[in-house]
Amino acid sequence: MYDPLLLPELRVMLLENDEPGMHEFCEVLHPAQVAENLEELTSDEIWRVLGHAGQAKRVEVFEFISLPRQMELVGTVDDARLSALIEHMAPDDRVDLLKKLGEAHVERLMPLIAAAERHDIRKLLSYPEHSAGSILTTEYATVSESATVGEAIQQLRSQAPDRETIYYLYVVDDERHLRGLISLRKLILARVDTPLSKIIERDVISVQVDDDQEVVAQTIARYDFIALPVVDDQNRLVGIITHDDALDVMQQEATEDVHRMGAVGTLEQSYLTTPFFTLAWKRGVWLVVLFGAAFVTSSILSSYQDLSAMYPWIVAFIPLVIASGGNAGSQSATLVIRTLALGEARSDNWHQIAWREVRMGLLLGLGLGAIGFLPAMILTRWHGAIVVSGTVVMVVTLGTLIGSLLPMLFKKLGMDPALMSNPLIAALSDFTGIILYYSLVVIVLGRNG
Amino acid sequence: MYDPLLLPELRVMLLENDEPGMHEFCEVLHPAQVAENLEELTSDEIWRVLGHAGQAKRVEVFEFISLPRQMELVGTVDDARLSALIEHMAPDDRVDLLKKLGEAHVERLMPLIAAAERHDIRKLLSYPEHSAGSILTTEYATVSESATVGEAIQQLRSQAPDRETIYYLYVVDDERHLRGLISLRKLILARVDTPLSKIIERDVISVQVDDDQEVVAQTIARYDFIALPVVDDQNRLVGIITHDDALDVMQQEATEDVHRMGAVGTLEQSYLTTPFFTLAWKRGVWLVVLFGAAFVTSSILSSYQDLSAMYPWIVAFIPLVIASGGNAGSQSATLVIRTLALGEARSDNWHQIAWREVRMGLLLGLGLGAIGFLPAMILTRWHGAIVVSGTVVMVVTLGTLIGSLLPMLFKKLGMDPALMSNPLIAALSDFTGIILYYSLVVIVLGRNG
Repeated sequence: MYDPLLLPELRVMLLENDEPGMHEFCEVLHPAQVAENLEELTSDEIWRVLGHAGQAKRVEVFEFISLPRQMELVGTVDDARLSALIEHMAPDDRVDLLKKLGEAHVERLMPLIAAAERHDIRKLLSYPEHSAGSILTTEYATVSESATVGEAIQQLRSQAPDRETIYYLYVVDDERHLRGLISLRKLILARVDTPLSKIIERDVISVQVDDDQEVVAQTIARYDFIALPVVDDQNRLVGIITHDDALDVMQQEATEDVHRMGAVGTLEQSYLTTPFFTLAWKRGVWLVVLFGAAFVTSSILSSYQDLSAMYPWIVAFIPLVIASGGNAGSQSATLVIRTLALGEARSDNWHQIAWREVRMGLLLGLGLGAIGFLPAMILTRWHGAIVVSGTVVMVVTLGTLIGSLLPMLFKKLGMDPALMSNPLIAALSDFTGIILYYSLVVIVLGRNG
Repeated sequence: MYDPLLLPELRVMLLENDEPGMHEFCEVLHPAQVAENLEELTSDEIWRVLGHAGQAKRVEVFEFISLPRQMELVGTVDDARLSALIEHMAPDDRVDLLKKLGEAHVERLMPLIAAAERHDIRKLLSYPEHSAGSILTTEYATVSESATVGEAIQQLRSQAPDRETIYYLYVVDDERHLRGLISLRKLILARVDTPLSKIIERDVISVQVDDDQEVVAQTIARYDFIALPVVDDQNRLVGIITHDDALDVMQQEATEDVHRMGAVGTLEQSYLTTPFFTLAWKRGVWLVVLFGAAFVTSSILSSYQDLSAMYPWIVAFIPLVIASGGNAGSQSATLVIRTLALGEARSDNWHQIAWREVRMGLLLGLGLGAIGFLPAMILTRWHGAIVVSGTVVMVVTLGTLIGSLLPMLFKKLGMDPALMSNPLIAALSDFTGIILYYSLVVIVLGRNG
């Protein structure tokens, strides 16, 4: 819960330099709550407050601060303090920050960081963006296969303070091959003298380091896991990804998809924190592309000038005709893109989807065409109404086809289906709609009115 | 991972009536994997396979089967077997199923279910759809405040088998007021003779039973919780919601938003499992509304027939002019709706957002207007280019305003901002765009060519 009363209190503490107060503020509240309130302060103020927290708490709070603010904070602190902070951060959080810092800065910090951590950082930095490797943490708990339950709990005790989760324990051999898994729940329930080898699960569900983070989130969601092990191509345990990371990935991927579907480029930050001109660029690029597409439609329409002059009612129905195709197409694209994102459709579903969408387009088109017939009679005559209704049937069917097939084609080509945004589908549908419309006019009414 | 080899194997087992094989299939695999494969079989086959699983496993697998398939399965089994199954299901999963079954069926089953469970079911059924109460489970673990760490672990052992999670333990008093929380991690790390009262967290973050499930998911995401306690207005513990439910809610809410933004009504099932005519209805309703809006635009355009005849180039730019406003508006709506859904914007941000979008609209409009000037010169003359460019500036600015303000207004009125779909924003922008366009023609060129 965001508590609006905490921030003014914190500001008073800063003003009065109330050191015990600031210490308590950091220690008593949940680190996420502390971070939330700190984000409203200046970098200098944040460091002053964090100076009164213990080392462990300072790191925890820092991890909950948003990446752009973390970057600002990093800029106002010396390398010695920064490297101490980074050394104690969770491996996945610190790699996110280091990626943003840039190579030169990282190389300057590296000598100040302990060798073991340095090795870990270099390895995690090497995994590609959006892969399972890029979000894993190496702080998982392990137990030996030869231990008893009682011994395993003892082993766990020594590891617990700095592991991301201790609720799943992994069994690995000397070469770190993943041999099994046991949950702390099972451990607590078992008798202390039970040999671990008797109760560990050996059929462990895992992902590969180079799997997409979306696959990770889907797997965690499907099996309700608290953590998911990540292995390399030799089945060696590389790290784990926890449930909270799955939530973050899912939220991030959904936001990215939604933005793309609305014809906005991928934002690195939230809408509110993205700088004005960055946002203008992410939007402008797409608007120019769509403007270009619309200009093509306009040129085509311009070439039909004689027809427009001959049958003046044609013009009135342009928005209706093109909107119908665009709307039906947007619906299809939306449904197909989301289904692909959720991992619900496999490639053997694709024929089924396309066939379904054609029938759906025909049904919806016939419905709209029928509804449109009467009002079209009012603004024109019956021959005009036939043209308008006929065009609506065709553009709606075509719209659903474009809207469903293009995202699937993009997926097949290894591109993000969400790039087929609603406005882009609408633009393609406008373009074909105009051609269909005027062609039907010529066929039904002829070139000479 | 979906393993395509498991299903044929299972079919062979069914064919050969391989009872030990089916038993092993159910017991060895993760229940989610068993469920995934079962979904490909007929209801009778599913019951045959599940008949060879132990009671606990049968229930677990059934919980992972999708709701529509659960409904089918329920229809092919007698009330005695069904009530036994329901009695052992997790409280949140069984309430989801019972809600679908309908009141008459539930009342028929109730006498067959143990009294304690019956009470639990009635209570959970009473919470409104989409509230925290509707997704909570009552199977949480509790410990007494007066216990030592060692005693607490003993208490936990007796509860562990049937609790949704045992990784967070709740401390409640005799009236079930929530007094504190301790994680199993802390318990494992502490000395066995430490009094619990010394180490429990007392400042517990919780949600209210009638809070929206979206708030629940956001809270769990923000604090990285494994479970979140749900309390009533007297701070009495009602239940908990676990991390996996948060993931489900987030996925479900994102899907609902995406669909609405693409002008598709809320689907109860996935795209692929929604019946054809249900989907046609969910799409058709919106298409008809949008068709009506487009018809209004067409009527207005029809009233400008004389102007269109006087300046034939006007017609060519209709798609360009209206698309620009619609595209910019869709972008704004997309950004604002997603920001509201993520809970990033508070109502004090709204002026800031509106002001930002006006400036953004002006900037993007001026940019597009400038880009459009030259090509417009080709299809018309400089006075036409002025009208086209001028209209583009205005419709883009207006589009961003409509696209950002309307979702915020909807939110303020307690409605879902995502109802302001991209096609609806485009329709509104079409309508105002046409009026602006022709008005500017009259102002710049006059009514007499």
